[in-house]
Amino acid sequence: MSRKPNSEQRRAQIVQALMDTMAEHGYEKATIQLIARRAGLTPGLLHYHFHSKADILLALVKALAGAAQQRYQAFAQDAQDDGQRLGAYIDARLGLGEGADAGAVAAWVVIGAEAVRQPEVRAAYRHAIDTETALLRELLSASLAAHGKSTANAQALAAALLAMMEGTFQLASVAPAGMPAGFAAPMAAQLVRRFIDAEPPA
Amino acid sequence: MSRKPNSEQRRAQIVQALMDTMAEHGYEKATIQLIARRAGLTPGLLHYHFHSKADILLALVKALAGAAQQRYQAFAQDAQDDGQRLGAYIDARLGLGEGADAGAVAAWVVIGAEAVRQPEVRAAYRHAIDTETALLRELLSASLAAHGKSTANAQALAAALLAMMEGTFQLASVAPAGMPAGFAAPMAAQLVRRFIDAEPPA
Repeated sequence: MSRKPNSEQRRAQIVQALMDTMAEHGYEKATIQLIARRAGLTPGLLHYHFHSKADILLALVKALAGAAQQRYQAFAQDAQDDGQRLGAYIDARLGLGEGADAGAVAAWVVIGAEAVRQPEVRAAYRHAIDTETALLRELLSASLAAHGKSTANAQALAAALLAMMEGTFQLASVAPAGMPAGFAAPMAAQLVRRFIDAEPPA
Repeated sequence: MSRKPNSEQRRAQIVQALMDTMAEHGYEKATIQLIARRAGLTPGLLHYHFHSKADILLALVKALAGAAQQRYQAFAQDAQDDGQRLGAYIDARLGLGEGADAGAVAAWVVIGAEAVRQPEVRAAYRHAIDTETALLRELLSASLAAHGKSTANAQALAAALLAMMEGTFQLASVAPAGMPAGFAAPMAAQLVRRFIDAEPPA
């Protein structure tokens, strides 16, 4: 009867252990042994809850995407209009403030890299990216419409912004020298605001 | 006497073979055997010219960065002012036109992914990124100054634009569903133009 909640908790514990181990050693060197040690569990128990390391990684993609969604919803709770909701999204994704999780960003970069190599990871990453792009297009369309602007470029703008976000995570992690501290969220917000201001009317 | 040019040619042939093999199989599965077959050479000859597969990859990073630089210089040849030079840079990096090389972009994404995992690749990738950021900051500063604008945000804008470029390559390669065809260069150019227009005076 009490099996399920305990099982969920164990799985979350294992997923977190993969994330921590990946941040330190990368995905390839994150063995089941290392993950188990980090989780304080036996390797056998890991195999009971997950078929393979790739399975744990898929659960991690879902957990990170879910946490990003929750962070946005928390930030957007007090938003009064579409512009503020868009700002909340940008801050939730790129800001250094409350709930920002450097370990989660590092793990996300590793997942993006693994998506290039492993079809299974790519499918999960794609799903997360497509979900984000759809949400961002919706937020941008609403902001454009609220300013009486054409929404014709909403999809292209959403794609550019999401690319900037993914690229920022990649560069901040792998080649941070040219990235001023905390530049990303204010710069993205300004780029979008100025783009919207200069769009033609609907 | 004629050893050196021949050697350069062989090395270029091997580097190109790694790029083609990686585009098809990824880096990990690009064995020396496969690369040699693609180059029409013996594995022994590959080992004569390069110590390891990682060495060939480093040569590829340099070749791709060099080709991107050359493409920019060709595009910028007829530029009349700083704004046109900036536009030439964006088109050279993101445009689908003359000299655009889908294989080179696919290889660059694999290199970005390998940079997350392998310190040697990361060092070469970093060097290429730092060089691009410096060039882009210079182009942006010149454009801002030519419009009588403050250059205080040039570094942050260069970082955001480079992140957008790297992210676009990553997403177009791994999660292309939300990326409208050919959106990137015109959207990046518009975002930058509108940002510069709205900057405060120097």
